[in-house]
Amino acid sequence: MWVVCSDLEGVFVPEVWINVAKKTGIEALRLTTRDIQNYDELMQYRLKILDEKNLKLHDIQEVIAQIKPLDGALEFSKWLREVSRFVIVSDTFVEFAQPLMAQLDYPFLLCHSLVTDESNRIIDYTLRQSDPKRKTVEAFQSLAYKVIAFGDSYNDISMLKAAEVGILYCPPANVVADYPELPVAYNYTELRAILEKYIL
Amino acid sequence: MWVVCSDLEGVFVPEVWINVAKKTGIEALRLTTRDIQNYDELMQYRLKILDEKNLKLHDIQEVIAQIKPLDGALEFSKWLREVSRFVIVSDTFVEFAQPLMAQLDYPFLLCHSLVTDESNRIIDYTLRQSDPKRKTVEAFQSLAYKVIAFGDSYNDISMLKAAEVGILYCPPANVVADYPELPVAYNYTELRAILEKYIL
Repeated sequence: MWVVCSDLEGVFVPEVWINVAKKTGIEALRLTTRDIQNYDELMQYRLKILDEKNLKLHDIQEVIAQIKPLDGALEFSKWLREVSRFVIVSDTFVEFAQPLMAQLDYPFLLCHSLVTDESNRIIDYTLRQSDPKRKTVEAFQSLAYKVIAFGDSYNDISMLKAAEVGILYCPPANVVADYPELPVAYNYTELRAILEKYIL
Repeated sequence: MWVVCSDLEGVFVPEVWINVAKKTGIEALRLTTRDIQNYDELMQYRLKILDEKNLKLHDIQEVIAQIKPLDGALEFSKWLREVSRFVIVSDTFVEFAQPLMAQLDYPFLLCHSLVTDESNRIIDYTLRQSDPKRKTVEAFQSLAYKVIAFGDSYNDISMLKAAEVGILYCPPANVVADYPELPVAYNYTELRAILEKYIL
């Protein structure tokens, strides 16, 4: 019996912060850990910008609601729910993911969360735990499931390595070069072909 | 951040074996652990009867597909998926649950499985692990979630006790008498009122 663990951004939906930057026109929100390596520093910087622009959580949620899942994402996630046990494990925040989950018919999602004040201002964030993707795989293994996992980037590697089967999905070239041992799929058809070998 | 763990039979759908007995007219399938206390003995007895009647897995699945979820179950499970992380933890078999999950729009389900041969005959069953309900609660707690759990009977007690909040849902009187410390809900409105105190 298998559990399927998947990343969210880059697999089922586009990158959230980049699209929030695009849709709000706030260029500073395009910065990623490539620009500010320390994640906490980056997040505090992002929250400071939202505050300066007087953007509350519900404003950002309205922007995110305009982002569409990737083509075929809804159908693919529905198929996974029908044929297996499907979990999305993401480093995003549940409040940001919510408008996207609504468009994906609410799959099972494990991720981080935001802290807001009474005026709906985002004042901080809470990381659920360290290395949450790897720990999610281990939790399902403790329930006697085998895990097949896929994701697109470095933050997925500990999940892919802990899983019985790990797959890179639409990864950038540097990730492929760094992990040549992992199978790669570049669209849902290829991914499904690999998954079917195990979960059906 | 909460995970909601729920029992299946008696909470979202009627008891499967009793309804299979009703719909097939095979009275012997009504026996429960009240009649044959040893679960393995009971299951082997059931499989023997299915075999004698030449009922394959797909025959039973067709019968189960005629069973309807309880009134309001679909709406209630959809609400849980929207507002929280919702897991059904059942002692049934995934192959039996499947026709019911389809009617509930495929919530996240953890349960046991059957073993079939090439002719689709059910030859055995596999229990995922011992005390799977309690271990599921502990697995989500290991992921830094708090767990709120509900179920109707004795096999749910270890789950309700391991959870931060445990609720009896439509339990028989003897279960209420044995666990007077657990809150009780007798319909989805009452259950939702308790859940909302924690997960919203």
